[in-house]
Amino acid sequence: DFLHALQEVKPAFGAAMNSLEMCRLNGMLDCGERHKHIQESLMTLVEQVKGSDRNPLLTCLLEGPHGSGKTAMAATVAIDSEFPFIKIVSAENMVGCSESSKCGMITKVFEDAYKSPLSIIILDDIERLLEYVNIGPRFSNLILQTLLVLLKRLPPKGRRLLVIGTTGATEVLNEMGMVDVFNKSLHVPELKTADIKRVLENLNVFTAVDLEAAVTALHQLSIKKLLMVVDMAAQGKFKEHADAVYSGQRKIDISTFYDCLSDLT
Amino acid sequence: DFLHALQEVKPAFGAAMNSLEMCRLNGMLDCGERHKHIQESLMTLVEQVKGSDRNPLLTCLLEGPHGSGKTAMAATVAIDSEFPFIKIVSAENMVGCSESSKCGMITKVFEDAYKSPLSIIILDDIERLLEYVNIGPRFSNLILQTLLVLLKRLPPKGRRLLVIGTTGATEVLNEMGMVDVFNKSLHVPELKTADIKRVLENLNVFTAVDLEAAVTALHQLSIKKLLMVVDMAAQGKFKEHADAVYSGQRKIDISTFYDCLSDLT
Amino acid sequence: DFLHALQEVKPAFGAAMNSLEMCRLNGMLDCGERHKHIQESLMTLVEQVKGSDRNPLLTCLLEGPHGSGKTAMAATVAIDSEFPFIKIVSAENMVGCSESSKCGMITKVFEDAYKSPLSIIILDDIERLLEYVNIGPRFSNLILQTLLVLLKRLPPKGRRLLVIGTTGATEVLNEMGMVDVFNKSLHVPELKTADIKRVLENLNVFTAVDLEAAVTALHQLSIKKLLMVVDMAAQGKFKEHADAVYSGQRKIDISTFYDCLSDLT
Amino acid sequence: DFLHALQEVKPAFGAAMNSLEMCRLNGMLDCGERHKHIQESLMTLVEQVKGSDRNPLLTCLLEGPHGSGKTAMAATVAIDSEFPFIKIVSAENMVGCSESSKCGMITKVFEDAYKSPLSIIILDDIERLLEYVNIGPRFSNLILQTLLVLLKRLPPKGRRLLVIGTTGATEVLNEMGMVDVFNKSLHVPELKTADIKRVLENLNVFTAVDLEAAVTALHQLSIKKLLMVVDMAAQGKFKEHADAVYSGQRKIDISTFYDCLSDLT
Amino acid sequence: DFLHALQEVKPAFGAAMNSLEMCRLNGMLDCGERHKHIQESLMTLVEQVKGSDRNPLLTCLLEGPHGSGKTAMAATVAIDSEFPFIKIVSAENMVGCSESSKCGMITKVFEDAYKSPLSIIILDDIERLLEYVNIGPRFSNLILQTLLVLLKRLPPKGRRLLVIGTTGATEVLNEMGMVDVFNKSLHVPELKTADIKRVLENLNVFTAVDLEAAVTALHQLSIKKLLMVVDMAAQGKFKEHADAVYSGQRKIDISTFYDCLSDLT
Amino acid sequence: DFLHALQEVKPAFGAAMNSLEMCRLNGMLDCGERHKHIQESLMTLVEQVKGSDRNPLLTCLLEGPHGSGKTAMAATVAIDSEFPFIKIVSAENMVGCSESSKCGMITKVFEDAYKSPLSIIILDDIERLLEYVNIGPRFSNLILQTLLVLLKRLPPKGRRLLVIGTTGATEVLNEMGMVDVFNKSLHVPELKTADIKRVLENLNVFTAVDLEAAVTALHQLSIKKLLMVVDMAAQGKFKEHADAVYSGQRKIDISTFYDCLSDLT
Ligand SMILES: Nc1ncnc2c1ncn2[C@@H]1O[C@H](COP(=O)(O)OP(=O)(O)OP(=O)(O)O)[C@@H](O)[C@H]1O
Ligand SMILES: Nc1ncnc2c1ncn2[C@@H]1O[C@H](COP(=O)(O)OP(=O)(O)OP(=O)(O)O)[C@@H](O)[C@H]1O
Ligand SMILES: Nc1ncnc2c1ncn2[C@@H]1O[C@H](COP(=O)(O)OP(=O)(O)OP(=O)(O)O)[C@@H](O)[C@H]1O
Ligand SMILES: Nc1ncnc2c1ncn2[C@@H]1O[C@H](COP(=O)(O)OP(=O)(O)OP(=O)(O)O)[C@@H](O)[C@H]1O
Ligand SMILES: Nc1ncnc2c1ncn2[C@@H]1O[C@H](COP(=O)(O)OP(=O)(O)OP(=O)(O)O)[C@@H](O)[C@H]1O
Ligand SMILES: Nc1ncnc2c1ncn2[C@@H]1O[C@H](COP(=O)(O)OP(=O)(O)OP(=O)(O)O)[C@@H](O)[C@H]1O
Ligand SMILES: [Mg+2]
Ligand SMILES: [Mg+2]
Ligand SMILES: [Mg+2]
Ligand SMILES: [Mg+2]
Ligand SMILES: [Mg+2]
Ligand SMILES: [Mg+2]
Repeated sequence: DFLHALQEVKPAFGAAMNSLEMCRLNGMLDCGERHKHIQESLMTLVEQVKGSDRNPLLTCLLEGPHGSGKTAMAATVAIDSEFPFIKIVSAENMVGCSESSKCGMITKVFEDAYKSPLSIIILDDIERLLEYVNIGPRFSNLILQTLLVLLKRLPPKGRRLLVIGTTGATEVLNEMGMVDVFNKSLHVPELKTADIKRVLENLNVFTAVDLEAAVTALHQLSIKKLLMVVDMAAQGKFKEHADAVYSGQRKIDISTFYDCLSDLT
Repeated sequence: DFLHALQEVKPAFGAAMNSLEMCRLNGMLDCGERHKHIQESLMTLVEQVKGSDRNPLLTCLLEGPHGSGKTAMAATVAIDSEFPFIKIVSAENMVGCSESSKCGMITKVFEDAYKSPLSIIILDDIERLLEYVNIGPRFSNLILQTLLVLLKRLPPKGRRLLVIGTTGATEVLNEMGMVDVFNKSLHVPELKTADIKRVLENLNVFTAVDLEAAVTALHQLSIKKLLMVVDMAAQGKFKEHADAVYSGQRKIDISTFYDCLSDLT
Repeated sequence: DFLHALQEVKPAFGAAMNSLEMCRLNGMLDCGERHKHIQESLMTLVEQVKGSDRNPLLTCLLEGPHGSGKTAMAATVAIDSEFPFIKIVSAENMVGCSESSKCGMITKVFEDAYKSPLSIIILDDIERLLEYVNIGPRFSNLILQTLLVLLKRLPPKGRRLLVIGTTGATEVLNEMGMVDVFNKSLHVPELKTADIKRVLENLNVFTAVDLEAAVTALHQLSIKKLLMVVDMAAQGKFKEHADAVYSGQRKIDISTFYDCLSDLT
Repeated sequence: DFLHALQEVKPAFGAAMNSLEMCRLNGMLDCGERHKHIQESLMTLVEQVKGSDRNPLLTCLLEGPHGSGKTAMAATVAIDSEFPFIKIVSAENMVGCSESSKCGMITKVFEDAYKSPLSIIILDDIERLLEYVNIGPRFSNLILQTLLVLLKRLPPKGRRLLVIGTTGATEVLNEMGMVDVFNKSLHVPELKTADIKRVLENLNVFTAVDLEAAVTALHQLSIKKLLMVVDMAAQGKFKEHADAVYSGQRKIDISTFYDCLSDLT
Repeated sequence: DFLHALQEVKPAFGAAMNSLEMCRLNGMLDCGERHKHIQESLMTLVEQVKGSDRNPLLTCLLEGPHGSGKTAMAATVAIDSEFPFIKIVSAENMVGCSESSKCGMITKVFEDAYKSPLSIIILDDIERLLEYVNIGPRFSNLILQTLLVLLKRLPPKGRRLLVIGTTGATEVLNEMGMVDVFNKSLHVPELKTADIKRVLENLNVFTAVDLEAAVTALHQLSIKKLLMVVDMAAQGKFKEHADAVYSGQRKIDISTFYDCLSDLT
Repeated sequence: DFLHALQEVKPAFGAAMNSLEMCRLNGMLDCGERHKHIQESLMTLVEQVKGSDRNPLLTCLLEGPHGSGKTAMAATVAIDSEFPFIKIVSAENMVGCSESSKCGMITKVFEDAYKSPLSIIILDDIERLLEYVNIGPRFSNLILQTLLVLLKRLPPKGRRLLVIGTTGATEVLNEMGMVDVFNKSLHVPELKTADIKRVLENLNVFTAVDLEAAVTALHQLSIKKLLMVVDMAAQGKFKEHADAVYSGQRKIDISTFYDCLSDLT
């Protein structure tokens, strides 16, 4: 059933952990081979930064379409690393701040990290941190320059740091010289038919026949959109229907599912 | 007669309600199948946000030509939702404020909403909130970034929020990444012949013959323009003529109607 | 004679009236059918706003070439309306003010208007209020946004407002979305031969033969240019000649008139 | 001789007069028919503004290449008008001032003028007042808007004002809407052969034969360049030679003149 | 073994030395003929500035792709010069500073240098000092102008200064006039096959056979990327494997090396 | 020998003189006919300004490639003029100053000059004074406008001023209207073969045979580059070699010269 489909999540500490957990609110489902491979690459970097005397700073960019699971992936790897210092830098916590106070907050996170032997910093939605907008285009050069420098600055002796960035605007970041400054870039894709099937199987919300039918209608979709369609369909027409579906008591009506799908895409 | 043609409006509370009521000053008329369908879609979202544990934040954009009834529709759905927290964010209440104090006011509305178990926020005329102008183009990136973040930020545990945006500048908002950030977009169109006929029938201001004649002259028109033409024609040449028309005592003179129509379009 | 050619002007009150009177310094002459039609349309709006419960706000834009008489027309209609609140918003009274204090002054005029049951506000030379210049182009977005909002904001219950805008930069205002926001646009043209003849007849400054000759030389001209040419010709070569002409004692010398005409156009 | 070649200059008053006199430091020479015609047109305007009840504000733009004598012409007409208020607004007196204090100074000049029954204001080198530069292009919109408004604002009852502008950047001012706002534009050209001959005759610094030779070499030149070449040639190789030339004791050496000419053009 | 492969580094003094040493954290390896030649050219300039009475200021730009070793090279030459004043100007030490305080800091470094008979200043990553970004493009003109002036300003009598700049954005600096202002430009390239072979031999982390295989797969690579691939491969799958490799006890597994290589490039 | 090759420099006074002397640190060599002609033209202007009652302000621009000797030439003429007031306005003395304080400093220099009967002001490297950069392009319009006005403003009665500007960005200054505002422009070129030969002969650092060989290899070069190559070659491989060369005891090794030449160009 749905609850078992979630990956186990290790206990973690304090406020930072809360906002990390918010990034994967409904737990993590198996999203297929490609997502798994990306997660393994990230865990290798975690090991690398732990083990290396020579590269005290490693940086990796997760890039891909909106809703493809970049932030959830970064949060999961950070939690799983069990590093003593983990922090997510997100525009959500800086609403209304001036450019320079955002810079101050970002720099502070790095300087706090330098005090811990092992740290992970997630720079979430970098185009949002940069206040980027396509018209103009405009963005905060102050914040950009701060990030460009911080992503190259070595931590002091004995400290090690892994930085994971996420973005849905790869092209733009590339033009800014932001992609080059990361040691590594990983593409987090939308789900394809096989991945979608796996997710739906794990959710266990369709009859076997309807599952085949549902999957046939779906070629490419982000995990975000997929889960939203399922949830709308699970609610169906009557209140409290959804609980019954997720606990395995009822199944989603396939025509309701089709309606919700065409409604959202 | 005209008064019966209005949809019933449920009582509501306080100052917010006043400004919502201002958005549909002369009550709501039946604008045909397409408007009805949009209103139903919105009411489904209202139910969805009430019923879902998994999607505590839903966002929907109403877009379409000026005067097509977007704001009136959003206000109606909000009032009908009977949610304990309803607020309209409109440039009208922020005339003369600086960008940053507008940001502060908008953020405050969201933070107030987070304190209520069920909330609706209407972001009215988003291009105006953004101080957008086609020449340049120019707009407030500060406000844009604030909205982009607030439209993705999840409310705290146990709080649920529906955000309804309205805009007459879909293309522009799309380029800004504003459309993508909404879960759903709905197009609110101008009225076509059949819709116009229904509105005029409900208003009951023409003789049967004149109604046919009037409708024939009208192919596509916003509800706003239509009502303004009717009102001008209702006033006719003599003072206080209009009351007689709306109360059913008199009918509009069809040639006066044609004059007003050609005058305004 | 000239004094009788002026339309009668009703007495009015206070300082606002003074600046309105400055807009038609030498009184109003009959400028032909097209000008008359525009003036009637405006007076209809005046009646409309007085009579309507449903449209408490009406807005109309007078647009056309420089010197065609837009400001004089708006001032005349405002004075003739006998509304208790009349105000002209003009860049002339805001020389040297900052953008934001201009916004404050404009907003104040609207808020004062909201306190009167019936009001007219003239937004004179909107491109100048906006500090528009073709190079760049540049303008005050702060003021533009303020106007865009104020032109849509409904006055409170029981208050009615007519806004008349004037501009010589229709294209620009259209691109800014300024034209759309007005309920109605009226084009105020330059004078054509027939109009010019009527003006000159009323002025009674030519002999019958010279009048025909003068008119033949004139195909299209703004009322402003026409009156300036006449005035220059009336002065002729000798001081105080003009008074004699306007009081009907003397006539303008036709060749002097031709000279002045070629000099100014 | 040279001193007699100068037009007589009437005595004038105070500091303003000093800076007007600086504009025609070496007196005014006869520059030929075209310059004379422009000066007459300007004097007509002076009469017009004195005589007219109906046009209390007249504005005229002198435009043409650098050094063609625009400023000297405007200063001469102003002095000759014997108006009680004459002021030249020039960037030279505002070096280092901020845009807004320049605006304040300009506005002050107009407001002082409104207190005098008859006034002339010279707006000298308008592109410089506007801080215009071709790259960008950039300029002070604050000052531009101030000028656009002041050039249309009527003086109070009983006050009359003539504004004479000068510019070497007609195209630019035209694009800014600055040319249209003037009632009249006059082109001040460079000198042609006949004009040059007249100037050189009046200066009386060549022998008759050399004069013919000199004139033949000169087709088009500004009065400024012409006088500079003459002055350089007059100095020749020995100190204090120039005085002898201007006082008629000696003549310029024609080959020295050719050298200076090719050196400066 | 690895430790012997490092070039000897002479002892140096104080804080500046620490940040210089950070620029070549893992010591300097022989990178082939081209790198050697550049280093010699720089040492010649060091001698030149020491020996010349006539050129008290020499400036040299190291330009080339990211990670090619420019900063490490500049730091090494500076340390080897044994000049009494050595300072690296780097954006890393100015995170969050305003443009003008960065200017102040840079100017201070030059003024301190003027007090020492012999000085070296490294301007590291000039595009970063200039806060350059390709979009716009944008940069700090304040800092650019400061550098342009400081790079031409002669030190006072008896003081001599060598400035070494580094950049990965040669084109951009050229357009800014930054390249021209340096007396000399040197290109620091990526490694080619022969250079790579030499580095790997010196590191002594492969068996002879694997070394040939590894080199065959590598045509062009920066020293930075090369060392990172080696380090990742050295860690292999088990913790603490890397130490064994660098100390010569174990060799890198060639297929692990290939994996790391394809992972990072 | 070298010391005799220098032109004699007259004694001068105070601090200003020091910075003028810094502009020709190693004395002035004969750079051939074209340089000599420019210097003579400048000295003629010096005489002109001394002798003329009619042109109290003369302005001349020296323009040409970097290192061609513009600043050294201007400094030399200024020193040779023996005018009581000489001042060089250079960006070097204004590092880190704001635009407006630079304007203040420049204006101050002109106002000081107005107090002296005879003055020379050198505006050195005007594009640098203007903070010009090719990207954008950007520059200080505040400083530009100040210069444009100061270059036209006449000194008070009895005061005479010569302004010499230098620039390596003629095109740019032309577009800004900066070139037109100068009375005269002079092009300072790089050296051609004959000029180079003369310089090298005067320096007397080659054997007769080597001199011919050296000259053959050199077609066009700035005096700056030429002297730097010579100085590098003079130092050769051994310390203190240069002194021996310049004092005539030794000669430069021609192959060392070739090496230095290819190194720097
Ligand atoms: N593997 C997963 N299992 C279950 N839910 C997931 C998984 N990955 C992502 N999600 C959910 O999908 C939604 C989108 O994921 P996430 O926010 O990580 O995407 P994103 O790529 O960061 O999108 P954006 O570019 O908009 O920031 C979130 O609600 C997240 O909790
Ligand atoms: N269904 C309806 N029945 C009666 N009146 C309506 C209806 N819908 C809209 N109106 C009226 O039509 C006018 C325009 O509607 P509304 O302001 O909602 O349009 P809009 O699409 O928001 O326009 P804009 O893009 O200019 O903001 C308003 O006066 C509103 O009261
Ligand atoms: N009907 C009229 N009779 C007499 N004079 C008129 C009439 N209309 C306008 N004028 C005069 O003509 C001149 C120009 O008119 P007005 O200022 O109204 O033109 P405008 O269209 O507003 O021009 P602008 O676009 O420059 O503001 C004014 O002096 C005004 O008094
Ligand atoms: N008629 C004249 N007789 C003698 N000198 C004259 C005459 N007209 C102009 N000058 C002189 O020629 C020079 C240039 O004239 P002026 O400054 O009026 O030109 P301008 O057209 O205003 O130039 P700019 O466009 O550069 O401001 C001045 O020194 C002025 O004194
Ligand atoms: N000769 C060398 N031997 C060993 N390591 C080196 C050598 N040169 C450079 N490195 C190392 O390679 C990495 C990149 O070198 P460096 O930072 O000098 O490159 P860069 O050209 O300055 O790059 P960027 O353009 O990104 O600033 C650093 O970790 C440095 O320590
Ligand atoms: N005639 C000369 N004899 C000897 N040295 C000279 C001579 N002219 C210039 N120099 C020297 O050549 C160098 C460059 O000259 P200078 O600075 O005057 O050139 P510039 O044209 O002003 O260059 P830039 O455009 O870069 O300012 C200086 O070191 C100067 O001392
Ligand atoms: Mg994300
Ligand atoms: Mg609306
Ligand atoms: Mg007007
Ligand atoms: Mg002038
Ligand atoms: Mg570097
Ligand atoms: Mg120079």
